[in-house]
Amino acid sequence: MVNSIWKSYPQLEERLNQTTDYIHKMVKINNLDISSMIIDLTSGGKMLRPAFFLLFSDFGKEKRSNEDLIPLAASLEILHVATLIHDDVIDDSPMRRSHPTIHTKYGRRNAIYAGDYLFTLYFELISKHLKKNTDILENALSMKKILLGELDQMLINYNVKSTTAMYLKEISGKTAELFGLSAAMGAVVSEGDEQLVQRCKNIGHNIGMAFQIIDDILDFGNSNQTGKPVHEDLKNGVYSLPYILGLEAGDKELINLLSKVDLTVEDGNRAMKIVVDNGYLEQAKQVAQKYSQEAIDEINKLPVCKSQKALKNVVKRLLNRIK
Amino acid sequence: MVNSIWKSYPQLEERLNQTTDYIHKMVKINNLDISSMIIDLTSGGKMLRPAFFLLFSDFGKEKRSNEDLIPLAASLEILHVATLIHDDVIDDSPMRRSHPTIHTKYGRRNAIYAGDYLFTLYFELISKHLKKNTDILENALSMKKILLGELDQMLINYNVKSTTAMYLKEISGKTAELFGLSAAMGAVVSEGDEQLVQRCKNIGHNIGMAFQIIDDILDFGNSNQTGKPVHEDLKNGVYSLPYILGLEAGDKELINLLSKVDLTVEDGNRAMKIVVDNGYLEQAKQVAQKYSQEAIDEINKLPVCKSQKALKNVVKRLLNRIK
Repeated sequence: MVNSIWKSYPQLEERLNQTTDYIHKMVKINNLDISSMIIDLTSGGKMLRPAFFLLFSDFGKEKRSNEDLIPLAASLEILHVATLIHDDVIDDSPMRRSHPTIHTKYGRRNAIYAGDYLFTLYFELISKHLKKNTDILENALSMKKILLGELDQMLINYNVKSTTAMYLKEISGKTAELFGLSAAMGAVVSEGDEQLVQRCKNIGHNIGMAFQIIDDILDFGNSNQTGKPVHEDLKNGVYSLPYILGLEAGDKELINLLSKVDLTVEDGNRAMKIVVDNGYLEQAKQVAQKYSQEAIDEINKLPVCKSQKALKNVVKRLLNRIK
Repeated sequence: MVNSIWKSYPQLEERLNQTTDYIHKMVKINNLDISSMIIDLTSGGKMLRPAFFLLFSDFGKEKRSNEDLIPLAASLEILHVATLIHDDVIDDSPMRRSHPTIHTKYGRRNAIYAGDYLFTLYFELISKHLKKNTDILENALSMKKILLGELDQMLINYNVKSTTAMYLKEISGKTAELFGLSAAMGAVVSEGDEQLVQRCKNIGHNIGMAFQIIDDILDFGNSNQTGKPVHEDLKNGVYSLPYILGLEAGDKELINLLSKVDLTVEDGNRAMKIVVDNGYLEQAKQVAQKYSQEAIDEINKLPVCKSQKALKNVVKRLLNRIK
């Protein structure tokens, strides 16, 4: 069963459950260990990307049947999970969605190949269910932007001179690109015109930006609850927006703390306090608010229908998580 | 400059050099370290997959211009290099083509993402330069088979009950699939009919099978020269065909040696001697010979032209490496 956030939208919830079933059917491979781990990873998640794709597929001129919509919705979650698996190997994360990660249980080898395998599955599904080569190419280009975002991240890690612009560019590739693609694909498959596709892509992109900033802020508040060691990101030189705002404002103590080679828990706690006391956390929330508002303004320009209302509610609820 | 094996075919050599230049142009990304390592990895190689693709593109009804041929030839090498980068992370190999591997120099993170990035680049090139969705789908399905082959390998590693059939199935996915795809794509882009495409795919597949068996045999003979620690594959539970033939024949001493938890250099040397003395190495050579012969028989059925002759020569030269 899909995550409970969709329970107010029974039609969407039903299609997301079908999407989950479809993914599970597709990943039944010889290697049963890997197969069952992928099934765990694709169960009970929020399924935001398939959900946005399905909601946005209501705005074009044509309603496509579930026969194409479900595999395409599945492909977006599959692409997302592929990147999660590789991210977990890279960060050596022990847990994901309350399950041990694939590399923890079956080694790096299988985790890397399992991610690669999911990339190919994504690629198969979109080649099969998108009508035009140019739409397939759009997907390839999005996937490339996502990876280039990850490769660029190396350039800003451990960099106390990181700026808001650099952070926003990074999450634009890492997260917002796939949200934008999901929304745009919804418009594309329902035969939306160029203007609609572009509008949906923008909305998805803005939602993705807000979502990632909010996720980073939530992580900031309760590192213990997410199962990650406290201040792990800081130790790895990965700075979320509240810290970057402090660094960019030239806060000397914060710069000194984050420049330390061996950052202690006390250093991390002190850095957190600086960020809260000086309003950088609040400023970060405002940036998330700004992206959400831009998304809502554009959603208001979409045709009035149930899905339009649902989209507005979902965006508001995402933002409420940090209020 | 491309590897000297193509110097007898100046036209092909010229196009392979263009392919290399094209790859280098495509991988110029922000992250200059990664970019230059990918450039190293795609320089001076044998470029077998692009070469076969280009040779097979001479057999269809139409000559396609270099404008499409070069990017497609490049895409096949890019896919191959993507799998090499991930293989090197997985095997923790220090060197590749006389250069330190990406993960050795820039860490696992960048190696995994660099491989992923090359997958997306491959995907972009074929979406852009193949005409039909079904041809793109064929590529996706091939890429999937390659990855499923890698995932299945886990099931046969450290398995002294491995059989020839299991080994052949594994290299069929790992190596021969991409050779088959390269050949088939050559036929496809030159508008070959269904029968020609199938024949080219078979030829490519047989060449790939022979190539991998031969490569394993060469590795067998001179582990020291390849820069790998002696008997590393045996220690990792990866058995090449000569060993598998011995295991399958029920050679008790060999089974006992390979079942050891800590295999010493002496154990490895002894295992090698058993395999040579009992003719298993020779038998493996005969299997490679059989696949080469099947390839040549089918090449003889292709239209008579320069490329047909070149193909026969190349297959013979691959086989001569173990004579």
